[in-house]
Amino acid sequence: MDSAGAEPRRERVELGARSTDVRLGAGLLPHIWAAVRARFPAAARCGLAIDSHVAAHQPLPAAPADLEVLEVRLPRGEAAKTRESLSALQDAWIGLRRDEPVVVIGGGAALDVGGFAAATVRRGIPWIAVPTSVVGMADAAVGGKTAVNHAAGKNLLGAFHPPALVIADVRTLETLDPRDRVAGLAELYKCGRVSDAVLLTRLREGAPTDAEAWLDVIHRAVAVKARLVEADERDGGQRRLLNYGHTVGHALERVLGNERLRHGEAVAIGMDAAAGIAVGRGLMSDADRATQRADLRRLGLPVDVPAGVDAEALQAALGMDKKRASGAAHVFALPVGSTGARIVEDVTDAEIAAVLTAKRD
Amino acid sequence: MDSAGAEPRRERVELGARSTDVRLGAGLLPHIWAAVRARFPAAARCGLAIDSHVAAHQPLPAAPADLEVLEVRLPRGEAAKTRESLSALQDAWIGLRRDEPVVVIGGGAALDVGGFAAATVRRGIPWIAVPTSVVGMADAAVGGKTAVNHAAGKNLLGAFHPPALVIADVRTLETLDPRDRVAGLAELYKCGRVSDAVLLTRLREGAPTDAEAWLDVIHRAVAVKARLVEADERDGGQRRLLNYGHTVGHALERVLGNERLRHGEAVAIGMDAAAGIAVGRGLMSDADRATQRADLRRLGLPVDVPAGVDAEALQAALGMDKKRASGAAHVFALPVGSTGARIVEDVTDAEIAAVLTAKRD
Repeated sequence: MDSAGAEPRRERVELGARSTDVRLGAGLLPHIWAAVRARFPAAARCGLAIDSHVAAHQPLPAAPADLEVLEVRLPRGEAAKTRESLSALQDAWIGLRRDEPVVVIGGGAALDVGGFAAATVRRGIPWIAVPTSVVGMADAAVGGKTAVNHAAGKNLLGAFHPPALVIADVRTLETLDPRDRVAGLAELYKCGRVSDAVLLTRLREGAPTDAEAWLDVIHRAVAVKARLVEADERDGGQRRLLNYGHTVGHALERVLGNERLRHGEAVAIGMDAAAGIAVGRGLMSDADRATQRADLRRLGLPVDVPAGVDAEALQAALGMDKKRASGAAHVFALPVGSTGARIVEDVTDAEIAAVLTAKRD
Repeated sequence: MDSAGAEPRRERVELGARSTDVRLGAGLLPHIWAAVRARFPAAARCGLAIDSHVAAHQPLPAAPADLEVLEVRLPRGEAAKTRESLSALQDAWIGLRRDEPVVVIGGGAALDVGGFAAATVRRGIPWIAVPTSVVGMADAAVGGKTAVNHAAGKNLLGAFHPPALVIADVRTLETLDPRDRVAGLAELYKCGRVSDAVLLTRLREGAPTDAEAWLDVIHRAVAVKARLVEADERDGGQRRLLNYGHTVGHALERVLGNERLRHGEAVAIGMDAAAGIAVGRGLMSDADRATQRADLRRLGLPVDVPAGVDAEALQAALGMDKKRASGAAHVFALPVGSTGARIVEDVTDAEIAAVLTAKRD
């Protein structure tokens, strides 16, 4: 990844005392401890959670002698999002004061569980998110949603606890499995489709090829998310637009598991399903849906439900066979026209079933 | 308890979308389900956590047929504040939607763990606090601090998650162990000493003897707390005045356990210790400290560290033998003059040691 001309960028999620400063750049990780020290000058200790796979591939500089680091290695990826990992982090960090931060390094899963632990120790100690994946940078690090999984579903236990600081070093993307890097593009595309036509146009030109191009699309996606989170931190209104592709996507992840289907891949398939529902409602033309399918495929993403998925299991994961108090309605973020999206709260089981079973091109 | 003339009262903690409506009265518990239904008309289900001792002594009315109640019995008192109880509540409530509340009935301990579980399910579902103890009504139900204990200390894991509604029925105080009812008076006295001279005067006249008198002092204490929480929800400023008596109090609880020393008793002893430090600093006269000692004793509360407490264990529980990054300073809420209090951030080990070892009258 060529980082010539990759100037550091800054963004901020303005939430009063709970605001997040975001720094994006190429080559920030080697300076991580200086950044911690600058932000928390009084800290004698700091927590560290790091995805074990990341730890093996991203050498961290040694911490300064006057900073005691309470380190926990997390299982790789989604396997970290358990109550057991949460307890291990809490036990390691329980002695920290409210002015001693924790640093969480890894993809979206590590940030989810690390941020949740920080939310619960002393009712909330500050944390620094250091995302090392595209999804982590564009999505998990920004907005304060933290979580672990539960047998009943993904992310069902968690808290809103925005990090004080995000340090996103696009150099860390170089060591990603190419499949994971491509999968992450789905979250960027989603942000463009929901509210940034310039970002959408950039991604139509293909995947980023150098550090500057990565910084550019990730910064744009972070800005989209920042504005939606500022307007609706608790996710009861416009922030739900970021769920575009996630309703069907989460259900597919539950049925297939993340070994078979990456989160971003599931979101890409979910975006096409949502587009199908939008077409059925006249919110979007067939041509616009076809454009999106072509865009996603050009980026290397899947758009169809994989062959062999158990239809009944998928319907169950979508809650299509449960009685719901509010009737049989599902809430979806649906695309509108060639750009933009809206929240629709009355999608029926039949509409979902139609797009999941119809064969496309 | 005579409830003639005990008119229901209302108070509110104004925290925007996270505000708490407080209702105080005599005989509210039999109407609990109507109150739940009125506040959450769309709920098909609701969670219920109830202290097992309370459940045995406070018969609850049957829930309406159209409300499925997901009930968990909690161990009595402080024993409920564990990660195990937290997990049991999360497992029972994981299927609730964000518009389906949980009801938590019991003393401060039940409210602490029940509120924490509500904070974590789907990143926060609404909860209704139904305190059945004096401490629960005057303290735990108001302000949103929730917690469980950790081997490293009390309340070290938790969240800020204010209840949507508090229903405080002073009739439930009738079934309390008299020792617990008296212990609760310490929290009321604390609120009076910190910022309500009228409340302080009432309590100098002795413990309340009927429902109206209980409603009056509890309402005043709730109002004191509400105003401090509104000004400083996250407990970094003036809210810390409510810690008056709690620094030494918590340490005593850790050393002795709540079987030997009730929370309120520990707070009473802690208030006298803090008053001793205040006298040493010239913030308060010896006479004012003596008045407070006499007041607390008249209410039936202890003021001296019980004989046989291990001095070293107490010092360790106070963090007096630990190196702290900020030097050897402790943060205390100290009483000032005959009424009022202030936060002091530079109390030394020596000042604490002096008041813990000096013999008083």
